[in-house]
Amino acid sequence: MNLNNIRIVLVNTSHPGNIGGVARAMKNMGLSRLYLVEPRQFPDEQADWRAASAADVLDTAVVTESLEEAIADCQFVVGTSARGRRISWPLLDPRQCAERMALASNDEQVAVLFGREDRGLTNDELKLCNLHLNIPTSEDYSSLNLAMAVQVVCYELRMLLNSPLLPKTEDEEWDTPFTTGENMERFYSHLEETLTDIEFLDPAAPRQLMVRLRRLYSRVRLDEMELNILRGILTETQKWVSKSKKKLPK
Amino acid sequence: MNLNNIRIVLVNTSHPGNIGGVARAMKNMGLSRLYLVEPRQFPDEQADWRAASAADVLDTAVVTESLEEAIADCQFVVGTSARGRRISWPLLDPRQCAERMALASNDEQVAVLFGREDRGLTNDELKLCNLHLNIPTSEDYSSLNLAMAVQVVCYELRMLLNSPLLPKTEDEEWDTPFTTGENMERFYSHLEETLTDIEFLDPAAPRQLMVRLRRLYSRVRLDEMELNILRGILTETQKWVSKSKKKLPK
Repeated sequence: MNLNNIRIVLVNTSHPGNIGGVARAMKNMGLSRLYLVEPRQFPDEQADWRAASAADVLDTAVVTESLEEAIADCQFVVGTSARGRRISWPLLDPRQCAERMALASNDEQVAVLFGREDRGLTNDELKLCNLHLNIPTSEDYSSLNLAMAVQVVCYELRMLLNSPLLPKTEDEEWDTPFTTGENMERFYSHLEETLTDIEFLDPAAPRQLMVRLRRLYSRVRLDEMELNILRGILTETQKWVSKSKKKLPK
Repeated sequence: MNLNNIRIVLVNTSHPGNIGGVARAMKNMGLSRLYLVEPRQFPDEQADWRAASAADVLDTAVVTESLEEAIADCQFVVGTSARGRRISWPLLDPRQCAERMALASNDEQVAVLFGREDRGLTNDELKLCNLHLNIPTSEDYSSLNLAMAVQVVCYELRMLLNSPLLPKTEDEEWDTPFTTGENMERFYSHLEETLTDIEFLDPAAPRQLMVRLRRLYSRVRLDEMELNILRGILTETQKWVSKSKKKLPK
């Protein structure tokens, strides 16, 4: 596990105090890379105060204008989510999720996304994730404070650092590097374009097609060679469509 | 486990905001019994604000003049402690400690003590405890915010409560049945046929292409709907190839 390869990404945080609380929670557990996507107020005195001796985490925080920018170079993205979203997605508790992140962090960039205080991450944001993480709560009051949620996730990572044996999974010792979020976005664009070309996707009535395909491929975690193969297939398919259309005007 | 038999005891808390944060963390995890030993300021607006929807925990909090009073009826007392106290004591991490507390809570009163923001519990207070609990931290910054420490301990209790109910893997509770091996074989045949049609795959020199694609899709475990989508794409692609070839003989 390499905690330096794990970043915490806060999306549209409203209260600067929470950003400070997050910075402190991170540093307490040995994490240091904080990304802020369009924070409402930052830098801010409240953030400094709550950060206490974690000012360095705030000083080196990266502020971005979009979530995509914050995770562009990441191979493994985890989104925190409440239960019961309409489309189900792989959903793990913080402990299982930490194990997956710890493994990935050995040679990949990992991001954990935390949404807005009042309504979390949007469905579109959650679709950018390989896994969803759910913190178990009481049914009487399920909304955790943002910094508390970060604390729980960072704590689980810390517990793994202290434990001698890390679990093995099929992802370990993979023969080809996994691809980045940026490359996956290019792939999805290419896929959507091709599906429109072959008239399998109707842009006027796309239904849930691209969502389902995103869910499929984010689940598998594509490596670089697999991505090249899939894009090669798309390019070849497009050639046939354009050949057919060009030489055969109706 | 009976969470109603587990109380959180805060000793000489300085900042009322922390008391509110503790109340929220407790309610989020299903705990409700808060004891305050000589808080500097309580009740207080800051406490109410940080408690958010956990006002009931603050309303029913028991304020006492001494620690002894707060734990008088308890059979099992745990004290949170930094590492390296002068007197050694049984010291467990939050996970091990939560297991002990959960067991005891079935028929005993259990208390978890949290000390002052700046210097924790005194040695005399720690001597009142059956066990000491230490939250693992980074050496660079080991002082957790009080409410964060309570959050971590309550989270571990919650995880024990939930553990039998949580999905064991991310595949559980999927919204569509996973497909069969037989259907997968049909899909691979169809895929191979289509890739040959579009001349992406050369049957005379297939190399490792189908192996790589099999590895990809076997890793993801396709559900029935995903399989239908992928086969639909293949069928549509084949139509374009045959259209192009039929109407355009060389």
